[in-house]
Amino acid sequence: MSIIESLNWRYATKKMNGNAVPQDKVDQIIEATRLAPTSSGLQPFRLIVITNQELKEKLVPASFNQAQIADSSHLLVFAAWDNYTEERINNVFANMHKERGTPPESTADYQKMLINSYVPRPEEVNFNHAARQAYIALGMALTEAAELKVDATPMEGFDADQFDEFLGLRAKGLKSVVILPLGYRDESGDWLAGLKKVRTPLSEFVIEFN
Amino acid sequence: MSIIESLNWRYATKKMNGNAVPQDKVDQIIEATRLAPTSSGLQPFRLIVITNQELKEKLVPASFNQAQIADSSHLLVFAAWDNYTEERINNVFANMHKERGTPPESTADYQKMLINSYVPRPEEVNFNHAARQAYIALGMALTEAAELKVDATPMEGFDADQFDEFLGLRAKGLKSVVILPLGYRDESGDWLAGLKKVRTPLSEFVIEFN
Repeated sequence: MSIIESLNWRYATKKMNGNAVPQDKVDQIIEATRLAPTSSGLQPFRLIVITNQELKEKLVPASFNQAQIADSSHLLVFAAWDNYTEERINNVFANMHKERGTPPESTADYQKMLINSYVPRPEEVNFNHAARQAYIALGMALTEAAELKVDATPMEGFDADQFDEFLGLRAKGLKSVVILPLGYRDESGDWLAGLKKVRTPLSEFVIEFN
Repeated sequence: MSIIESLNWRYATKKMNGNAVPQDKVDQIIEATRLAPTSSGLQPFRLIVITNQELKEKLVPASFNQAQIADSSHLLVFAAWDNYTEERINNVFANMHKERGTPPESTADYQKMLINSYVPRPEEVNFNHAARQAYIALGMALTEAAELKVDATPMEGFDADQFDEFLGLRAKGLKSVVILPLGYRDESGDWLAGLKKVRTPLSEFVIEFN
């Protein structure tokens, strides 16, 4: 199926049937997020994968009681770095040089430039920048899920502070930014399932300079 | 080709060969961005598509002289709403009701809730929220481009104010947030083309709660 067909098939599933998504499909969705490009390759976010039913149920009230949290098979939480630090930036480049067998000196100037421009900025500015990168990966996860006929509902409607507390994210220097329950639609119980997908008309959405 | 294979094939192409991407492929990449889900379905961004060579060349100095701007076939600019307004929110719902044939009253409470919570927020908060939505679409555009074997380089390194001025975006209530030149790699001239793709190891990237 073409990606466009898959994206037309997908929708923000409101009611899931509780069936489990096979691990190989979840693995591919995770891998799509890991392969997502990010600014300077920093990958300033982590992916939390929750299958523990007790924990999912604990998170329902922290998600405005949206049922997909408990009915999903896997709950993905995209959690961004709370800040850019010299150590985090250096770690990314150290891993890159290890993988490529390249000399650390080859990126020393670039690393210094990144550190000098990012680290002094307010934490909020850096967190917002990191969060945006996580959204690129969210787009890729949604596309991969649709291609695999796995339902997924991107959600910003949750209490990030409570999630961070329940998941112990603060100690890891992470803050949750967006969540994505994975599962399978229960069409008979989903008010949104039968409704036409609506988007801004192409003529309004695109501005051309030819 | 599977999406994972396509995402492994793609990279942030540094040197493009100037060949034109066929219009039907560009159309599919645009459609992927238009189908991207966004918070409350607001689609708070527009896509600028630039093929005009003179304009692309004018934008090179506003992009730290990165050659892909001029060598790309199509330069996509993701431009987010500068703010959420009552009129913009109402327009989205009016279009939805027209397309679905549903009564405007059916979402009146939800629209009022959105307007009351979004419109009073600082413009910067709203712009940042809108920008994040554009990044979901960026992730989908990158995936679709890779699947179609079109090269694409997501770039934040450009002068957004100058772009907004040259493209007349301010008058449209838009601010450019990220750009994506599309084209074809010139492997012989691209220092990055032969280097191994490096990502955070899965064991560090994923945090599981089973």
